[in-house]
Amino acid sequence: MNTSANEIFPKGNKAPAEYFTGTAWVRPLVSPDSGLNCVIGNVIFEPGTRNNWHTHTGGQILIATAGTGYYQEKGKPIQLLEKGDVVTIPADVVHWHGASPDSEFTHLAINPNTQEGVVSWLQPVTDEEYNSYNK
Amino acid sequence: MNTSANEIFPKGNKAPAEYFTGTAWVRPLVSPDSGLNCVIGNVIFEPGTRNNWHTHTGGQILIATAGTGYYQEKGKPIQLLEKGDVVTIPADVVHWHGASPDSEFTHLAINPNTQEGVVSWLQPVTDEEYNSYNK
Repeated sequence: MNTSANEIFPKGNKAPAEYFTGTAWVRPLVSPDSGLNCVIGNVIFEPGTRNNWHTHTGGQILIATAGTGYYQEKGKPIQLLEKGDVVTIPADVVHWHGASPDSEFTHLAINPNTQEGVVSWLQPVTDEEYNSYNK
Repeated sequence: MNTSANEIFPKGNKAPAEYFTGTAWVRPLVSPDSGLNCVIGNVIFEPGTRNNWHTHTGGQILIATAGTGYYQEKGKPIQLLEKGDVVTIPADVVHWHGASPDSEFTHLAINPNTQEGVVSWLQPVTDEEYNSYNK
């Protein structure tokens, strides 16, 4: 197991480069064929890494478990995420998430209502967008 | 915050005594009115504590995050749970979960498909049932 003391899960598989800027690791925990209409994965983002803008037809819940990360909904400021923070993302809201520039970041990604679809990927988050966080 | 180094969430509220043997603490993370048909809570069981036998109409997912716990489905042996273990519980399967006798135990409890119902509580787990774990 490649698990640091603060991590619950090992790193898993490298996230697909076409949907991420930087390097992230995805460990599947509950698969699409579970029969529960719910797909869950643990994601570890290296510092500076983020996923593309995207939407979930069935919504999504993020549970931050280690490090410091970013979450942004289209048209709103970036929100800082730390261990214990929970984000509830309504269906079809355009958003992205990832690590802050100087910290690895880990979250559980819980996708309910997968009978309605899982994810629609959009354009990458630009450096300007990523660097817009106001402390 | 009443959070030990290994915990992600503080203890939350005492679980209802009528559905638990022993003391457990529930911190709600995603509420029934989220619009996502998904209710999530973090549960900390004191050593020896377990919930009653019960079912979920929409199924349930447990993610063990600290300590050592037990999970049992009706008619099957008790299964040991440790940090990083994930249990996928199909709809309507009679089961219970809790701490092992000598360790606190923490899990995330994820209830998807809550439009179909959340939980139906049954009888308490007897000491004989609880003590049936075979190492």
